[in-house]
This record gives sequence, structure tokens and C-alpha cells, in this order.
Amino acid sequence: MIEAFTWKNDYLELLDQTQLPENVCRLKIETIESVFEAIQVLRVRGAPAIGITAAYGLYLGTRSLQTASREQFFSTLDEKIAFLAAARPTAVNLFWAMEEVKQRLMCSPETDGAALSKQLLVLATELHEDDRRRCIGIAEHGRPLIPQNARILTHCNTGALATGGMGTALGVIIQAHRDGKNVHVYADETRPLLQGARLTMWELASENIPSQLICDGASAALMRQGKVDLVIVGADRIAADGSAANKIGTYHAAIAAKYHAIPFYVAAPLSTFDMSIASGNDIPIEERGADEVRRVFAKTLITLPDADCWNPAFDVTPPELIAGIITECGVLTAPYSENIRNAIR
Amino acid sequence: MIEAFTWKNDYLELLDQTQLPENVCRLKIETIESVFEAIQVLRVRGAPAIGITAAYGLYLGTRSLQTASREQFFSTLDEKIAFLAAARPTAVNLFWAMEEVKQRLMCSPETDGAALSKQLLVLATELHEDDRRRCIGIAEHGRPLIPQNARILTHCNTGALATGGMGTALGVIIQAHRDGKNVHVYADETRPLLQGARLTMWELASENIPSQLICDGASAALMRQGKVDLVIVGADRIAADGSAANKIGTYHAAIAAKYHAIPFYVAAPLSTFDMSIASGNDIPIEERGADEVRRVFAKTLITLPDADCWNPAFDVTPPELIAGIITECGVLTAPYSENIRNAIR
Repeated sequence: MIEAFTWKNDYLELLDQTQLPENVCRLKIETIESVFEAIQVLRVRGAPAIGITAAYGLYLGTRSLQTASREQFFSTLDEKIAFLAAARPTAVNLFWAMEEVKQRLMCSPETDGAALSKQLLVLATELHEDDRRRCIGIAEHGRPLIPQNARILTHCNTGALATGGMGTALGVIIQAHRDGKNVHVYADETRPLLQGARLTMWELASENIPSQLICDGASAALMRQGKVDLVIVGADRIAADGSAANKIGTYHAAIAAKYHAIPFYVAAPLSTFDMSIASGNDIPIEERGADEVRRVFAKTLITLPDADCWNPAFDVTPPELIAGIITECGVLTAPYSENIRNAIR
Repeated sequence: MIEAFTWKNDYLELLDQTQLPENVCRLKIETIESVFEAIQVLRVRGAPAIGITAAYGLYLGTRSLQTASREQFFSTLDEKIAFLAAARPTAVNLFWAMEEVKQRLMCSPETDGAALSKQLLVLATELHEDDRRRCIGIAEHGRPLIPQNARILTHCNTGALATGGMGTALGVIIQAHRDGKNVHVYADETRPLLQGARLTMWELASENIPSQLICDGASAALMRQGKVDLVIVGADRIAADGSAANKIGTYHAAIAAKYHAIPFYVAAPLSTFDMSIASGNDIPIEERGADEVRRVFAKTLITLPDADCWNPAFDVTPPELIAGIITECGVLTAPYSENIRNAIR
């Protein structure tokens, strides 16, 4: 089974996703500086994955503080959190995951650096283990939704490479394959950064799941030919009304699915729900630089070098296009506002 | 004004589209073999453009037959037609355009090679001039559909580079710009071959039309933000019921436009209508090789080298998604079957 990263007693082994699918290269990460660099240049990506990696990074960055006082330890920890948070300033989950670890560590009564450091590693490992369990829970609850011989469209990458476990949307697909359901997967290439082409196709091949890559604009034609039974995607953030922010192109696929009366599912852990956000219109959308569109892999130029581009990282799919949200605690369906409130409580 | 190709007294000057937008390189084409190569490797593309180029190619391939008999001339002409048709075997328009020229030439009473060759050049020039006039006609009839300050989405390339004139869908946009309507254009990059990114963005920049490039999956999000007033695209073939085959991704954009109640127009000359095809389901769709999806510009690999891909060249937009078909003889609207029959008659 693929693991984006593995804790190896005293270092973090990390699969370098920037080299996939050409090279399968595992890095030995022993310093917080290396964690920073890995997050910054996307050697590790996906909200759950970078949160857990950062937690391990905090351990690596504080484990030398064996003789520090509790006060000194937390003071340094704050510095390290600020340091790692700057690796991807727009990835709010990165900061939240580290704050969560810090809050839990503050509940620990340990008074010296040696014990606090040891406890920090325990918490990072727990965070990792929690995510692994959440992925299994999502895969379990997704099971009844995937029929025998299902032909499934997915977008972006939501598998083991993006999480601390078997993945969210891709985890449901992998589970169906392991259950012998003879699934066939269509992966959107997911421009501009091509996570579908690079990562999802690699994960599917690793699991020996029959799959075909398609251009993002081709999915509607595929649906019209009757070749898609369901769509399943992940989410980066879900508002209290069920609106789901996910990689740009997701909303496009959701509209096409609706037009062809094909069920469109979102798979995400409950931690993805942000109850402070009432509706989809309130989800902030990061707009990224034009060079991601202008160039493939930051090199091959596909347009005028000074072409203006509109490059939002995410779009928002409204609840009326979503047939169900698969979480580790069950599948949420309409009415979303009420059912989400009950699930989160 | 941009011209994809220009007849220069005794040779064809051709803008090499494979080098755009990096280099603006004009080739001097003096032989039918050069025309074959240019069509084959897509130095010239777009149904009208390759048809006219091929007609000039037939002249280049027969102009040495000055002393041939009428019979000898037509015998050689048939060979040359077969030769050029093989440059892009699936481009039916290429073959049709050459057959059309041959039929007209057969109506000419000339008896010797010198006169027939001269007449062939006249016919090629007429075909070119006809297409130029058709583009102007489409642009004229499109005028009332483009409001002041319109923000327009388009797909693929339908401009001067694809035709013998100012273009079809892009021609309507260029006309609106020249009319001082302060238009803003969003161009889909149009994977896999990126005609939007490479060619449309270059044409828009050449005409100083404000424009932004977007990934194909981003158009629905753009529409949701209220940033698109209308969509206008070209067509490769239109069935008798108004179903329009066009570059893959067009149908996806049409569904998104419908969902957001944005008018979706097709601009195409009457020669695009194929009354032998009753409905959209009967339009044959060319499926192309996987390497077009796997690699960008036939080099940069974006997925596993052996990834299976589904790569249809076109999709079909049904008439219920089309607000109007802009032709050189007026704008056709629903009921399409009846109105197309009347227009073609």
C-alpha cells in the first residue's frame, strides 16, 4: 500500500511527489527545515497530509530541547509553528493542524523539554493514526454507494498521497476495487497542476485499478455516451450549508453530472466542515499566479509569455448538485444544513 | 490583419502555426509536397483553412502540366487529390473541398493543361475569397448579439488562423471589438492540443483585445461569479437537427452556460451543415491517440508513459443548449430542424 510518508523511529520517510510518476523517490527527512522545504515545493501536498507532516516537523524542530524548561519549550514551539506555517501561507489547515497539536500538548502536565518532546511525537503519531482511521471510515461508509461494475469519474488527487491513510474519494474507489466490484476509473487530468494525470493515475496503476485519463473538458462527453455511473471527489472545505470547495474543475464536473442525472458524491472527513462559514459564497477562493496556467511543470510555455490568466485554485459546488457527502461517521444527504449540524454536534 | 495563408502570385505564403505563439514564421510554399507536409503536421489547421490550402496545393501540383491533354490533366489531378487527402485522412472537409474544386474545373471547357491549370488557380482563389466573404457575413450577422461591455467565453481557435478570412466565432468577437464595444474575452486553453492557449490568445493579442486564458475546467466557476455574458464557439459539422460537433470541451461549456442561463452561440458557415446527418448521435467522432493527452507538445510527459487515455477530438452539443447558430445568411434559432432546412434550401 502507498504511503505518502512514514515515521521511521527517528526520522520521517517522505515520498517525493514532485518526482511522480517518473521516479518513486523516498526522502529521509531529519530536520524541520527539510519539512519546510518539502511542504513549500509540494513534495507533500493535500490538506491532511501536510498537517500531519508539519506535526512531525514540529517534533524534529524541538527534539534537541531536551534540557529546556516547559516555558522555553513552548516559546520555541511557537517559533517553529510560525516558521512552518509560512511554507504555504494560504493552506489554513496547515496552521490549524499545528495549533491543534500545540493545544493538546499544553494539556500535558510534563515540565521538561525531554518529556514534552517525547509527548509531541506521540501526538503527531496519533494525528497520523487518526487520519488513517478516518480514511478507513470514509471508505467503509462509501461502500454501499458503489455498485458492481461501476464506472467512476474522479477529479484531482484524493488518495494515499493526499492523506495519512488510504485517501478520501480515492479511498472509496480503492475499497470498491478491493471488494472485487470490477470498477473502471476515469481520472480528470486536473489542469493546471495535473494532479489527476500525475498522481491519481499513478495511484490507480499501483493498485492495479483499470483506469483512463481524460482531459478536463471531456467528462461531459463521456457522460453523454453513458460511460459514467457516478462521480466522486474530495473537498478542501465544506460550509455549514453543504457547499463544497474543491480543486478548480470540480463544480464543472458536478454540473455535467446533474445534467446527465449521474450521482455526484463528495468524500471528506468531518474536520473538513467549517461551521463558521454559512454558505458557499463565503468560502474564500485563493487565486494563484498566471504562470501555473501559462506553463506546464513551470517550464513548457503553452501561450504568450505575458498572457493574462484567471487561475483560481478552487471552485465551490453548491449542495443542490451533491447526492451525498461521505464522512467517517456516515453519508450526509439533503437537507444538508440540518444533517451537517447534527453530525458535527 | 492576420492571414493564415496568402497567395503571392506564384507561391503560397503560409503562417507556420506550429511555431505560434513563440515565433511568427511565414513559409514560402512552392510545391504540393510542402502543402502535404504543412497540413499533416498542422502548420495549417481548421477545416476551411486546410480546404483552401489544399486547393492551392492542387494548383502547385499540376502547374507543370502545361502541355498535357485534358484527359492527362484530370488523371494527374485525381492522383494529387488522393495524395493530399492522405495528409489528414479523418478531415473529411479536406477531401470535399478538393472534390468541389475538381467538379467546378470539369465544368470548364478548357482542353489543354496550360488553360486548365490557370483555371484551377482561379478556382482556388475564388474558394479563398468565398470563405473571406462568408466570415464577414458571419461577423455581420453576429453583431446584434454582442452587447456593449460583453464578457465573452470562447473555446478552441476559430479565427483567421482557422479560416480563409477573419474567422467564425472569433470573427464575431473581433467585429465587436472593432465596433468599440469594449469586449473582454476568456479563452479556454482547450486541452489536449491547446489551440485556445496557443492560437486564440495570440490572435486576441494581435488585435489588442483584452483577454484572459483559463483552464477548461474553470469556465463554470467563472460563470458562477457572473463574469460571462455569453459563450460563442465554432463548429466542425452541424447535423440537420442543429446538433453541433466541435472541439472536445465545447459540450461541457454549453451545459455550464445553460445551468447559469447564459446564451451559448455557435458561429459557422452554411457549408458546415451536413443534411445527410439527421441528429447529433449520428455524427462520427474521431478518437485520437493517447499521446496527445499524455504529453504536452508531443514532448513533456504529464502522466505514466503507458497510461490509457480517452481522447475524442470532438463532442456534440445538442440543439436545446444552443441559443442561436450564426451563419453568413443570418442567425438560425429554434426550431432548428425547420429553420436549417429553410436556410439550406
